[in-house]
Amino acid sequence: MERIPPYLHRAEGELWLTEDERDNLKMTYRIKTVLFEEQSAFQHVMVLDSYDFGPMLVLDGVVQTTSKDGYIYNEMIAHVPLALHPAPRKVLIIGGGDCGVACEAVKYAEITRIDMVEIDETVVRASRLHLPEVSGRLSDPRVRYCYEDGVAFAARAKGEYDVIIVDSSDPIGPAEQLFELPFYHSLHEALRKDGLMVCQSQSPIFHSEIMLKTYRRVGSLFPHIRLYTAVVPTYPGGLWSFTLGAKQELPDPDEIRFDKQAGYANEAVLRRCFALPEFLSELLEGADREASRDGGR
Amino acid sequence: MERIPPYLHRAEGELWLTEDERDNLKMTYRIKTVLFEEQSAFQHVMVLDSYDFGPMLVLDGVVQTTSKDGYIYNEMIAHVPLALHPAPRKVLIIGGGDCGVACEAVKYAEITRIDMVEIDETVVRASRLHLPEVSGRLSDPRVRYCYEDGVAFAARAKGEYDVIIVDSSDPIGPAEQLFELPFYHSLHEALRKDGLMVCQSQSPIFHSEIMLKTYRRVGSLFPHIRLYTAVVPTYPGGLWSFTLGAKQELPDPDEIRFDKQAGYANEAVLRRCFALPEFLSELLEGADREASRDGGR
Repeated sequence: MERIPPYLHRAEGELWLTEDERDNLKMTYRIKTVLFEEQSAFQHVMVLDSYDFGPMLVLDGVVQTTSKDGYIYNEMIAHVPLALHPAPRKVLIIGGGDCGVACEAVKYAEITRIDMVEIDETVVRASRLHLPEVSGRLSDPRVRYCYEDGVAFAARAKGEYDVIIVDSSDPIGPAEQLFELPFYHSLHEALRKDGLMVCQSQSPIFHSEIMLKTYRRVGSLFPHIRLYTAVVPTYPGGLWSFTLGAKQELPDPDEIRFDKQAGYANEAVLRRCFALPEFLSELLEGADREASRDGGR
Repeated sequence: MERIPPYLHRAEGELWLTEDERDNLKMTYRIKTVLFEEQSAFQHVMVLDSYDFGPMLVLDGVVQTTSKDGYIYNEMIAHVPLALHPAPRKVLIIGGGDCGVACEAVKYAEITRIDMVEIDETVVRASRLHLPEVSGRLSDPRVRYCYEDGVAFAARAKGEYDVIIVDSSDPIGPAEQLFELPFYHSLHEALRKDGLMVCQSQSPIFHSEIMLKTYRRVGSLFPHIRLYTAVVPTYPGGLWSFTLGAKQELPDPDEIRFDKQAGYANEAVLRRCFALPEFLSELLEGADREASRDGGR
């Protein structure tokens, strides 16, 4: 009898993946073939070739990135901080096992070193082999792969990095600690005095409480904070938020310059991603008022 | 035995709606109750109370608008053209049976008349009764409801309107003709000499061929054309496109003024919705080059 990997089922002769993490909304993808499947020490890892999105990375049954739209997330989490920093040389990526963020970072000639700290080597191997549209089969001598816990790595680093990019999965499972205050504190310590960090801070529509918690935590440590958005088609709700914390004042978005080859990002998009929908502006204004009342920023 | 309406099924004691229109990607919503169900002369109409999105309008099994996020689409299809027109007085809405677009239009004191042409009276009745978050239980004396075919209505109107908003469903079923050239030609004729029109032009990611066809058709009739986007969480891919055609030159987006109460739209969002992702800019540049080669614009 055919063995069907976990999270998949067969119906009407076809293979389907149903994301089951949400109670009230399920996405079901028609799958051509299973390109990779392995239970790692941390999670269940698959690369599935899907009809609508091409090969997709699936961790514990949840779609993380796809060949069709992975570039949007990766470009937006990488190029906004790299374009805002006056001279990024040393970059730390926490997570990002699909290699997509590192692929964007290597486009900057002035960057001399990229440390990519991914807890799960299986994810990197699977992505390099079966997800070339995202991983770009990355092989750049400036990238150093560190297969270890990002929390422990960040706690050891002191005043080393210009830019830190936290490309985590959702705050359940292996990535849970990457949304906690002690971790952001380590990032603050790991940055040079003009450094800045960015993290994905979930959906403003479906996880606004996680987004606001992240915004408050980053804001309690960094004097300058900004939130921006991008549209990620395969994430629930489409709209996704990123929170940026900086030690030094950030330039006006209209001063951003950008000349890299990209599929979603361009100068206008990078300048305008800070223009937030009204409901989101109001949520953040509420958080800012609270912080200043509590003697924070 | 319990009667379950079409498009719904019961599993694990719960009621679910699975959108079945797409071959390779299915969305499944957990449903609390069926608030309204009727087979009209045109389509199957339901209002379902869902766990994640509250009451939702569902036509022929496909979610059209929800209480949670309906305002995003309605604000963006209404306020962009209304903010760009120097003095909108008479407005035509084709479709828009959920009354959401008309609700946005009545926020402009200078508008004296809004003709809302919806083929299916059942949709208006269901929305006014069970979808107050979208329909606003609209009762404004400036709104005239016309329950007839939008194509026939538009063909009779000559030089009457300042702004025309085409809020259609997808180009299958009753709305098919609302994506055809003769219909856009009627709209052109129905507008005053400084008038402008806007239509929803589908997902740039999943239906880029429909989007480009719409852009080309509108561009073949109107000397000034612009495309903008918004994020609509319940539409596949999140990113949604709108195509705007104008008889007179449009002001620079940075000159847009906006002071209405809204949930998604604000002055920054209206000015910046024209900053397109790189892949989309490139698609449109291709279409523009083609048009100028063919002796069009």
